Amino acid sequence: MSSSCGERLRLTIFGQSHGPAVGVTIEGLPPGLKVDREALTRFLARRAPGQNEWSTARREADLPEFLSGLADGRTCGVPLTAVLRNDNARPADYAPFRDTPRPGHADYTGRIKYRDCEDAAGGGHFSGRLTAPLCLAGGLALQWLAGEGITVISRIRRIAEVEDPAPLRGSTADKPFPVVSDEAGERMKARIAEARAEGDSVGGIVECAVLGLPAGLGDPMFDGMENRIARLVFGIPAVKGLEFGAGFAAAAMRGSECNDPFVVKDGRVRTATNHAGGILGGITTGMPLTFRVAFKPTPSIAKEQDTVSLSAMAPAKLKITGRHDPCIVPRAVPCVEAAAALAVADALLCR
Amino acid sequence: MSSSCGERLRLTIFGQSHGPAVGVTIEGLPPGLKVDREALTRFLARRAPGQNEWSTARREADLPEFLSGLADGRTCGVPLTAVLRNDNARPADYAPFRDTPRPGHADYTGRIKYRDCEDAAGGGHFSGRLTAPLCLAGGLALQWLAGEGITVISRIRRIAEVEDPAPLRGSTADKPFPVVSDEAGERMKARIAEARAEGDSVGGIVECAVLGLPAGLGDPMFDGMENRIARLVFGIPAVKGLEFGAGFAAAAMRGSECNDPFVVKDGRVRTATNHAGGILGGITTGMPLTFRVAFKPTPSIAKEQDTVSLSAMAPAKLKITGRHDPCIVPRAVPCVEAAAALAVADALLCR
Amino acid sequence: MSSSCGERLRLTIFGQSHGPAVGVTIEGLPPGLKVDREALTRFLARRAPGQNEWSTARREADLPEFLSGLADGRTCGVPLTAVLRNDNARPADYAPFRDTPRPGHADYTGRIKYRDCEDAAGGGHFSGRLTAPLCLAGGLALQWLAGEGITVISRIRRIAEVEDPAPLRGSTADKPFPVVSDEAGERMKARIAEARAEGDSVGGIVECAVLGLPAGLGDPMFDGMENRIARLVFGIPAVKGLEFGAGFAAAAMRGSECNDPFVVKDGRVRTATNHAGGILGGITTGMPLTFRVAFKPTPSIAKEQDTVSLSAMAPAKLKITGRHDPCIVPRAVPCVEAAAALAVADALLCR
Amino acid sequence: MSSSCGERLRLTIFGQSHGPAVGVTIEGLPPGLKVDREALTRFLARRAPGQNEWSTARREADLPEFLSGLADGRTCGVPLTAVLRNDNARPADYAPFRDTPRPGHADYTGRIKYRDCEDAAGGGHFSGRLTAPLCLAGGLALQWLAGEGITVISRIRRIAEVEDPAPLRGSTADKPFPVVSDEAGERMKARIAEARAEGDSVGGIVECAVLGLPAGLGDPMFDGMENRIARLVFGIPAVKGLEFGAGFAAAAMRGSECNDPFVVKDGRVRTATNHAGGILGGITTGMPLTFRVAFKPTPSIAKEQDTVSLSAMAPAKLKITGRHDPCIVPRAVPCVEAAAALAVADALLCR
Repeated sequence: MSSSCGERLRLTIFGQSHGPAVGVTIEGLPPGLKVDREALTRFLARRAPGQNEWSTARREADLPEFLSGLADGRTCGVPLTAVLRNDNARPADYAPFRDTPRPGHADYTGRIKYRDCEDAAGGGHFSGRLTAPLCLAGGLALQWLAGEGITVISRIRRIAEVEDPAPLRGSTADKPFPVVSDEAGERMKARIAEARAEGDSVGGIVECAVLGLPAGLGDPMFDGMENRIARLVFGIPAVKGLEFGAGFAAAAMRGSECNDPFVVKDGRVRTATNHAGGILGGITTGMPLTFRVAFKPTPSIAKEQDTVSLSAMAPAKLKITGRHDPCIVPRAVPCVEAAAALAVADALLCR
Repeated sequence: MSSSCGERLRLTIFGQSHGPAVGVTIEGLPPGLKVDREALTRFLARRAPGQNEWSTARREADLPEFLSGLADGRTCGVPLTAVLRNDNARPADYAPFRDTPRPGHADYTGRIKYRDCEDAAGGGHFSGRLTAPLCLAGGLALQWLAGEGITVISRIRRIAEVEDPAPLRGSTADKPFPVVSDEAGERMKARIAEARAEGDSVGGIVECAVLGLPAGLGDPMFDGMENRIARLVFGIPAVKGLEFGAGFAAAAMRGSECNDPFVVKDGRVRTATNHAGGILGGITTGMPLTFRVAFKPTPSIAKEQDTVSLSAMAPAKLKITGRHDPCIVPRAVPCVEAAAALAVADALLCR
Repeated sequence: MSSSCGERLRLTIFGQSHGPAVGVTIEGLPPGLKVDREALTRFLARRAPGQNEWSTARREADLPEFLSGLADGRTCGVPLTAVLRNDNARPADYAPFRDTPRPGHADYTGRIKYRDCEDAAGGGHFSGRLTAPLCLAGGLALQWLAGEGITVISRIRRIAEVEDPAPLRGSTADKPFPVVSDEAGERMKARIAEARAEGDSVGGIVECAVLGLPAGLGDPMFDGMENRIARLVFGIPAVKGLEFGAGFAAAAMRGSECNDPFVVKDGRVRTATNHAGGILGGITTGMPLTFRVAFKPTPSIAKEQDTVSLSAMAPAKLKITGRHDPCIVPRAVPCVEAAAALAVADALLCR
Repeated sequence: MSSSCGERLRLTIFGQSHGPAVGVTIEGLPPGLKVDREALTRFLARRAPGQNEWSTARREADLPEFLSGLADGRTCGVPLTAVLRNDNARPADYAPFRDTPRPGHADYTGRIKYRDCEDAAGGGHFSGRLTAPLCLAGGLALQWLAGEGITVISRIRRIAEVEDPAPLRGSTADKPFPVVSDEAGERMKARIAEARAEGDSVGGIVECAVLGLPAGLGDPMFDGMENRIARLVFGIPAVKGLEFGAGFAAAAMRGSECNDPFVVKDGRVRTATNHAGGILGGITTGMPLTFRVAFKPTPSIAKEQDTVSLSAMAPAKLKITGRHDPCIVPRAVPCVEAAAALAVADALLCR
């Protein structure tokens, strides 16, 4: 089903942007995991809106309420459900988009799919708000993975045409703007500010690495690590591309250059380079699993846009006045980590 | 499970490169589909090896035997199984790779995963040979889609650093080298010949479009068209990247540029541009669904490579002498079409 | 996953008996279904405890809160989540059972399975309380089925050794004690009262029929109507047996007697008898789909019982003092209807 | 999908009774299992037709051909496919049943479901012939379970009204007529002979027990051991009922009688009785898992029967002249064992 994902660690995400709540049910979390609520709150805060100049003014407390799955603060093995209330909903903001769908949004496709019964407010179930329960689930997966010696790090690799070329070596989680090179970060922020000033938006690329993985995770052919991560990552709104290791650049390489020679290091099999992104045949090699995710610019922009009136079947103009991020990439960083963590945790439980 | 994929049209692929046969079971094919065996053979021939200078010398008849699922030449609604015999197997070619795994291949990861019990011959279940049953299933899906007015076209977009910039507008299926611009094709073939002469290999990019889709296919969040296609495409060996519509280029765009304005055309809702690749919120817009797939260079190269001896846990040299493609991209084109057809057919059956 | 069920109409049940809430997420409910909350409340009331002398004294309001899936009171096509708060929880009642597990309950097996991390209060996720969200989901399925001309009826067929031999022809939903023959019902109630007076409990059999089904629902081999119903019915605690049509009695029949001759009636194909219970080859014939479900007596009884102390690994005595039904069969009737409705609705959506 | 079943050990069964072959793909078999082909052949022989007076005269060699999944005679971790050729097919025998469907068979429901495109020959995919690949898969599961210390035993419990009351304590696999009491067996055989002489058939009950199970297998709510076994058992044609432990008899018990007191025995937790059939809350207790399966009489009988002509929509007479068992229960015994083995192996792999 479309809002469920995973084999042994299975999440089901529910909620609409301006409904009573969003939430997630996770089946398969191993029993006995002590939930660190403070760490979870910190993780969710990295995705939360309303914190700075490059995100929407919508504010949400995002304190999860656990409805099930815990006993004495530890997972008890049965489905865990946690919800986040939508305190700051303004459904009326979205009424016009039913007739004049926003370009780049799911207003039109959702209406077709759900035969005019869709919840149009704020994108409904298509909203970026739904990445909050994804992060909630991912935050729990991260806590479990930490106990297995596995960590997930990520960073903004690019905003608009500004790239951060410094290699990703450690966590950027403590930075307000999660880049490796703060100098590049300043130029990225300038691009976001420019776009905002012009009533426009910009896209970018998030890079992620999973460290500490054992060799042997993942399965051929359709449950390889790439397939598993892809299914989750393309569940994040605005993602248009995904590449592993050398990715698209591998297309321009020679085999002798792209192949990662095996070496013995500290008594273990490793590879001298990691163009494979830590995956061969869908299965982890034990090297860092690396991937990059392309995000399109936020489709909600203040500039007037061309659309159609569905009732009149005629051209129409649209001006979006709601609260929106000029660039969602900074807030997408923990979402990508969450997706990676969930895919990896599932693969680990499938061993 | 790892070798199964699909919700309402579900395929299970089995076989090893040098075992008795490879094959596929497809559940959910609508009853009454008249199988055009000749068209299926032609489709499989596009993937078949041994046909020209840029593919391996291994030859296979690849005439499918249908074990089930047909009655009087039509699908009868129950699982369809078809197998392709491995007539030209040479398992002994692969004996050395158990101890000295080939860089860029799944020899090492497969061995870890299957605890030393893996079928090492020719990559076993990890082999590109497994794309033959994928194409078999995809070829049947294409026949069913044709009856629904849906076609899939594709082309080589790039080999090494040579790009074919001409837009993809129609099928390249009848061309021996499936490019739009034959001039670019000649330069690509030259790159392949160079790599082969040097005992090396090159990668490339395949571009694909699905035409004739209705709006409204696909599901949020984890069964959007991107997610569905990704799960299948990353099942093709050597794929390292996937992008939809503007893809990674969207990361550098402004929202006002990337958003596709809605327009009314011939009484239907369309978009003026198609940076979304025909997908919004995971759901088809009715515009062509477009995507590109990055393939790494064939990992099997004639050049001597560095690896390790797993028994000695020491450095070793490896020279691969089997039959291999200097570039798998031309043969990957129908595989990408097959993956697209299967994903789309499944989504259509899920409506 | 264990608490999820269904193919196109998929439910995920969560919650523990004495946790904050129990609830259900339903994916795949067709968009546009107007939810009749009053009818839903009436349906839930048939399962609710605390209403009469044969059920537990625990009282619950059981007013569902819808967290998602609705827009303007209608289903909007995305996952629907509804929760029921556990207002009347008394977890402390259950503390002793962790060491001295209750015979006939999942205290011991849950503890083994969840490695001493289980939520022991009131059976946790194993509790009969979890049939409340099952009924919630089933109640919604029934509303959708009604629009398709399909109804589900059921009755108590047996309590202890008292059978109600009158044929099931119409709904018993309006009766406080859902039998066909009220005379048999009085004798059943007497058996329940006797058992209660002796600190004991009794079991029984529920019979169910689905009317108005089209021919052709269900799938061979593992998704036949029997398989689909079985998966849901055995999810109701205390079920120990399930039979369709003639069921176990068919074992003693001759083929000439058990086979249902086809006849033409009102221009449609029917069968003269219905020993098949409306199912041939797993697929509906268009006759009423009939089945019976055996419930064991409530394992929680007031009488002192033999058990073991898990800490001492020694014999122990146990006296259960919580609130429990002397017979759960009357309250199980709507649960069986819910299971049938969910299985049938799913099969209908899989056509 | 309908012909697939299982979570971690997943089988997909394909084939039609009179098509080229029947077969099965099994995903998830642990790597390294040495397949004992002789033991597998012996197991399949218990189900094979044509061996004695109480089974059909159709003869099949039933020597499985392994197309994939093995390397050097051991499972190699990837999908295993094995096929059985249909050497002795006589599709023409079945031509009349398309218009005049056989009572008690899936001729009519299959035709409706597959919109007149069904393979009608011999029941197609609905045929008892499909239990051959089920047994093939089950036979492999049994070999793996044996290595885990788990065995499956079963027996005919009843034929027509003749019951074998002796308790099931050990395997009956070596007996040509698998009963505990041979005296009861003789009376059963007499009933079968009588029915055959009259052109009729009889049904019966198979009893099965799984020994050596650890406590803690199975999952609430919909993947309990009952649910898992039910899904497989109701995939065997002609099954109309299933009960675990005391089963339907539990409905007439008092709680004080039905509850199994926990005891300590040889330092382990056991129960003094086993009315629960080794399952509490869907999870194994460590006691023998016991269940019984009711089979209706073979619907194919020589006696003339009433049916309808679907083309004329008018009453018609039908006389079946093909080869059929007067009682399928003896041959069903290994099928039930196979179903149990597959369910248990899957649950074990899900731990």
